[in-house]
Amino acid sequence: MMKQNNSFREISDKLLAAGSVLIYPHVNMDGDALGSAVALCRALRDLGKASYILIEDEIPRNLLFMDRGYCTHDQNILEDVDVSLCLDCGDLSRFLKRKDKFLAGKSSICIDHHRTTVPFCDYNYVDPEVAATGQLIYYLLKEMECCTDFRMDGEIADAIFAAITTDTGNFQYSNTTRQCHEIAAELYDLGVDVRRVSQEIYESVRQERILLHSAAVAAMERFAGGKAAMAVVTQDMLKQTGAGMDETEGIVDKLRSIEGVEIAVLVKEDTEKLKLSLRAKSWGNVAVIAEEFGGGGHTKAAGCSLKLPLEEGIPLIRQAVERSLQLYHE
Amino acid sequence: MMKQNNSFREISDKLLAAGSVLIYPHVNMDGDALGSAVALCRALRDLGKASYILIEDEIPRNLLFMDRGYCTHDQNILEDVDVSLCLDCGDLSRFLKRKDKFLAGKSSICIDHHRTTVPFCDYNYVDPEVAATGQLIYYLLKEMECCTDFRMDGEIADAIFAAITTDTGNFQYSNTTRQCHEIAAELYDLGVDVRRVSQEIYESVRQERILLHSAAVAAMERFAGGKAAMAVVTQDMLKQTGAGMDETEGIVDKLRSIEGVEIAVLVKEDTEKLKLSLRAKSWGNVAVIAEEFGGGGHTKAAGCSLKLPLEEGIPLIRQAVERSLQLYHE
Repeated sequence: MMKQNNSFREISDKLLAAGSVLIYPHVNMDGDALGSAVALCRALRDLGKASYILIEDEIPRNLLFMDRGYCTHDQNILEDVDVSLCLDCGDLSRFLKRKDKFLAGKSSICIDHHRTTVPFCDYNYVDPEVAATGQLIYYLLKEMECCTDFRMDGEIADAIFAAITTDTGNFQYSNTTRQCHEIAAELYDLGVDVRRVSQEIYESVRQERILLHSAAVAAMERFAGGKAAMAVVTQDMLKQTGAGMDETEGIVDKLRSIEGVEIAVLVKEDTEKLKLSLRAKSWGNVAVIAEEFGGGGHTKAAGCSLKLPLEEGIPLIRQAVERSLQLYHE
Repeated sequence: MMKQNNSFREISDKLLAAGSVLIYPHVNMDGDALGSAVALCRALRDLGKASYILIEDEIPRNLLFMDRGYCTHDQNILEDVDVSLCLDCGDLSRFLKRKDKFLAGKSSICIDHHRTTVPFCDYNYVDPEVAATGQLIYYLLKEMECCTDFRMDGEIADAIFAAITTDTGNFQYSNTTRQCHEIAAELYDLGVDVRRVSQEIYESVRQERILLHSAAVAAMERFAGGKAAMAVVTQDMLKQTGAGMDETEGIVDKLRSIEGVEIAVLVKEDTEKLKLSLRAKSWGNVAVIAEEFGGGGHTKAAGCSLKLPLEEGIPLIRQAVERSLQLYHE
């Protein structure tokens, strides 16, 4: 059942032949999911298509600047959709509330860079070697420029920069490649406003968020001989700080930045389950930990959920991290 | 007296003709100063020159990885030096203790990107349009490759990446250009190990430091209608977290990044006085606050001291910040 990737030309042709396209970024959208979606939606509209980004949760506050009327929660906004296109996710479970609408599209496309993605659409472009889906969207839009009057502009450049800079940790993660910088260089020619994107994403931080990060870090735990660091965000901490669970991004990276820490774990106490964000620094592998709990991701960044209360989940997580640190070592 | 820039060819020729070169980065060296110096020193040694980086203060902990026997405090390490070359600084006051040695060189070269630099050497390349001196060193080494067997390698690539990424705030500051990304892309061909550089520079943070930052931020105070944020680092907090007062850098920037905060203040409880770090975000002026207490600085970043205990100093600081916010407003 495994399908080969289609070419950008084939995907471009399919999109150019469509009248309507609904774009599906994954739940808990990040800069790459939304940036990719915005760049593509804007391009499709420029090309005269009816296009929206269909979402099922809220846009993170620091990414709101990208949504200039592209995102909607309204599943009826377009009927008889020609193309359902999922971005930065290759699994129906990452857009569960929109699944039926997605499958109702006359045809489907998946563009993604996750290693665990199994191609399941009519057209697929899945490349785990690229750092960000935004990179693939850039190549797709270049392809579209070849045979149409469409041209990328500053707004699209901002969205693609947002996608690449967030998913590469500002060009610091090991997933960063020559191509990321080549694209960034070309975005300057398109008028990217790096300062604005960066200020929006990183420098308008809610005090509640900063207080939550401080509280989580202050209560962190080191284990596995110091090689692992784990922090927990509980519902109580959200109440005390006034922050939302969508404001936990960055905590796990702070844990990883500690000298001697190889694997960092953030455990979020959701209403019915624990959600985990996992990071490895250099030689560790967190994909195996995530997979153990039915999740997935990359070796250096992965995620999963556990349907367990905190007191039962934490020891299991600790054990899984320790196992991974034994399996993959320096 | 103002001299025009020399060409990289002229500077390259001068260096290729030299037998010995001493390189002078500025005091309080940063990633750009040291990264540029290491890249150049390594290249000169490859070319058979006697070359060292002469320093007068300590290498910051997170930059130590770059020094593989290049840096020395020993002013007698080379005698009758052919070329004195200052990097990332264009002012003798930034290498005051090494000034006499610098001036004793048979000829002098300055390579810098500071707007305030007045060319004062025999050969100068000063370009305030580039984001980092490391960029200029890259161009110079390319020039050297043209007429010699010398070739840049992974170690040089790492040093140049360190220079560019630190001075551009990881490609987020407004000084970042297309050329920064073009060079970064080319560094991949040379085998740059971005992950290692980034880990060394940013991800070897002492846990004590992170705990201190969390404690200080968690206890911060907002006042002046939310326009001001103030955090205090007490001697007690240092004891509790195990951190040193030299590990407070970054706290005041975190306060400033909070939505709505225009002026951020960090108060450090030193043994006999209070030391203040002040930051303004966009329209505020902290220089006037610092001057009020006998300190100084720029409108957006300033500092001062108060010979008062905390309980007496804090109300005075609060008042001074409020006065400044009344005087300078949006």
